[in-house]
Amino acid sequence: MSTVNKVLMAPDGPEFSQLVQGYWRLGSWDMDAQARLTFLKQHIEMGISTVDHAAIYDAGHCETLFGEALKLDPSIREQIEIVSKFGINGIATSATEKRVSHYDSSKAGILASTENSLRRLGVEQLDALLVHRPDFLMDADQVAEAFNELKQSGKVKHFGVSNFTTSQFDLLQSRLDAPLITNQVEFNPINFDVVADGTLDQLQQHRVRPMAWSCLAGGAIFSAQTEQVKRLRATLSELGEELGADSIDQVIYAWILKHPSNPVALLGTGNIKRVKDAAAALTLKMNAEQWYRVWVASKGVNVP
Amino acid sequence: MSTVNKVLMAPDGPEFSQLVQGYWRLGSWDMDAQARLTFLKQHIEMGISTVDHAAIYDAGHCETLFGEALKLDPSIREQIEIVSKFGINGIATSATEKRVSHYDSSKAGILASTENSLRRLGVEQLDALLVHRPDFLMDADQVAEAFNELKQSGKVKHFGVSNFTTSQFDLLQSRLDAPLITNQVEFNPINFDVVADGTLDQLQQHRVRPMAWSCLAGGAIFSAQTEQVKRLRATLSELGEELGADSIDQVIYAWILKHPSNPVALLGTGNIKRVKDAAAALTLKMNAEQWYRVWVASKGVNVP
Amino acid sequence: MSTVNKVLMAPDGPEFSQLVQGYWRLGSWDMDAQARLTFLKQHIEMGISTVDHAAIYDAGHCETLFGEALKLDPSIREQIEIVSKFGINGIATSATEKRVSHYDSSKAGILASTENSLRRLGVEQLDALLVHRPDFLMDADQVAEAFNELKQSGKVKHFGVSNFTTSQFDLLQSRLDAPLITNQVEFNPINFDVVADGTLDQLQQHRVRPMAWSCLAGGAIFSAQTEQVKRLRATLSELGEELGADSIDQVIYAWILKHPSNPVALLGTGNIKRVKDAAAALTLKMNAEQWYRVWVASKGVNVP
Repeated sequence: MSTVNKVLMAPDGPEFSQLVQGYWRLGSWDMDAQARLTFLKQHIEMGISTVDHAAIYDAGHCETLFGEALKLDPSIREQIEIVSKFGINGIATSATEKRVSHYDSSKAGILASTENSLRRLGVEQLDALLVHRPDFLMDADQVAEAFNELKQSGKVKHFGVSNFTTSQFDLLQSRLDAPLITNQVEFNPINFDVVADGTLDQLQQHRVRPMAWSCLAGGAIFSAQTEQVKRLRATLSELGEELGADSIDQVIYAWILKHPSNPVALLGTGNIKRVKDAAAALTLKMNAEQWYRVWVASKGVNVP
Repeated sequence: MSTVNKVLMAPDGPEFSQLVQGYWRLGSWDMDAQARLTFLKQHIEMGISTVDHAAIYDAGHCETLFGEALKLDPSIREQIEIVSKFGINGIATSATEKRVSHYDSSKAGILASTENSLRRLGVEQLDALLVHRPDFLMDADQVAEAFNELKQSGKVKHFGVSNFTTSQFDLLQSRLDAPLITNQVEFNPINFDVVADGTLDQLQQHRVRPMAWSCLAGGAIFSAQTEQVKRLRATLSELGEELGADSIDQVIYAWILKHPSNPVALLGTGNIKRVKDAAAALTLKMNAEQWYRVWVASKGVNVP
Repeated sequence: MSTVNKVLMAPDGPEFSQLVQGYWRLGSWDMDAQARLTFLKQHIEMGISTVDHAAIYDAGHCETLFGEALKLDPSIREQIEIVSKFGINGIATSATEKRVSHYDSSKAGILASTENSLRRLGVEQLDALLVHRPDFLMDADQVAEAFNELKQSGKVKHFGVSNFTTSQFDLLQSRLDAPLITNQVEFNPINFDVVADGTLDQLQQHRVRPMAWSCLAGGAIFSAQTEQVKRLRATLSELGEELGADSIDQVIYAWILKHPSNPVALLGTGNIKRVKDAAAALTLKMNAEQWYRVWVASKGVNVP
């Protein structure tokens, strides 16, 4: 069985597994606490030791469900790295509700969200806390104050961001002592804007690894009927044969992991078979021509 | 009555009042010199001590009209901070005129424009001189030479820019000893591109305050009949009630001033009642959810 | 006759002639080796001592043809600066070919491409080697390793890039000891995006000169029938009269060379008469208003 390696996320940063198990859909996996624990142990055994959460996933319920599983075997905590995120204040929409979902990166908001995540997960410390979405009202000094307090109290070891532009990243980094350890970004064959818009250039420059989310485009790769996705499916299948891959998923993970910013990839499935498939992708050797074939299939034009 | 505070514009920069009286429409206010002086004294009394001019406003006539008022009571000069701008060479269009309006940031052009502004205003020194528009022909070394000369001769205390992109700002800053003290940018509920495109991130990073121009979108907020502006009017009215504001103007100023780059806002009205209304906006407390409600009304979609 | 001057390309960089003879169309000039040598001597005599090549031009054949001419008079080598480029792996398309053209900036790829260019040109050293196109798979460390090796072996003196965005430039520069000596970019009256998108701001900031390619938009300036190009032709002709230029070409070169990033301009013609015309453009004095008239003709709107 393939073993997923651990990689350094940033200078002085933590080590994460090159594939990270995302738990945003945990609420829909229909697993009892024991089944959740089993799933967790299975992916740890493969070397997938890093897990990704956020306060907003099912309004905190995903963290609660995960915490219940952890409680069944507290020795697991030491074997994993837990990432969570803060900052989206969801507000249920209704015909009469005038208020809107928004972001909150106030110091008080960050501290409260983190306390809630720790409580729900039933742990004392997060390995990393990420800003979930760029908040146009982000006061970088306030965020830095909150991060310092969480670091000093031992509640969070490392800090990062998600979906940040380069200028947002520079701004926040300018107020922090330690390097941000990641920018978690959308990266899949349908949308890989971050490859060309400077986001991944910035990370490569600072030797900070991105975490790639929505690697399979939320499933659109398999089902969408646009010309773009049809071209992509044909090319990915063809590459699957050339590379001896078992599935299109594997080709996609290999494609993402080949990027020189050295991403780690988030998995969203609760199906252990598909997790194993993904892990096997790490052994595939894709060359540059094959990588660009996906680029061409996605864009519908040749490279300039 | 509310008193408008003074705020530091940048490290080692000047202090400006948090609301700045803009004089670009002075020519249309139909005031004699005494009325202009009265208006000026009234806003100084509120704490609005900073005034904004530019060489191009009515081809210099606005500066001349302001200078006439100042001459009636020269003691006023010490109570105010005067900002002016250079760099747009307007050319009247006509059927036979082939020449076009253009920018001039040559050293000779900067020195000449500044002399003319000083002469028209009847003062010895500007508190700040801004580049009015980015000039694609800007030779940053020449601009720096002009700035140094104006600084040494005591004709200008501080320097800034207007409508600059982040790369233009970086370029000019790289040639200067002192920090640029502002980037004056368009910022209103219809157009707030600077919030997301990096412009305000850069300023926040360097602790330089933007000056927000066109806060009321040239009046379009009150009159335009687009779907966007209709949504905005409804949301701003609703917020006005929640916040206990007297007018939509106040809600808009509160919305702009809430941004963490700490803008100062330009007023364009010659109606002292509306100036007072704006000053009262400084006491309004808008929360993040309310700020994003304007974002949502403007964009027509929820935040991601 | 006008003499083209040499200019410093970057701090510690090489000196290139302000006009550079491009050889990408050499294969279509229908010259025997002696005619090629004559052409080369003629432009050297004018002061155009820098020549521009790339591994991809006619799949290497342009370098071979140039090398044949050099071999007829090896003393020429010391009188010129040779630029070449690497990184595009062209793949002939056919009905059955599934592979696509792509980029290669692997260390092995860079070393092999450079060896091939040296062999075809019949020289021991390139004055400058450029990355031809940004490779989304560029591992900046590998590129730096290759550059160091080529520098130490004496095979290449200086390094630069072409068509790079600002973040790609920053990334690669961050791994190199010496400054990149240029970014070769498209710059003509139809497409001058680099003037506003930060590319030339970055170069001016670092005092690195761009090399302008496609100055005449591949001839589209003379032949295209779009409204934009019709406006441009009318304005360029009018400016030609005002400036006493012999041709529209000259006006365009003067327009490009006026940019404060101090570009050097690439010529693509094999017609020595047109090369002479271009050299004469260096004596034209275009003012800012005239420069912006081309801007306005291209954009179809006045400056803001």
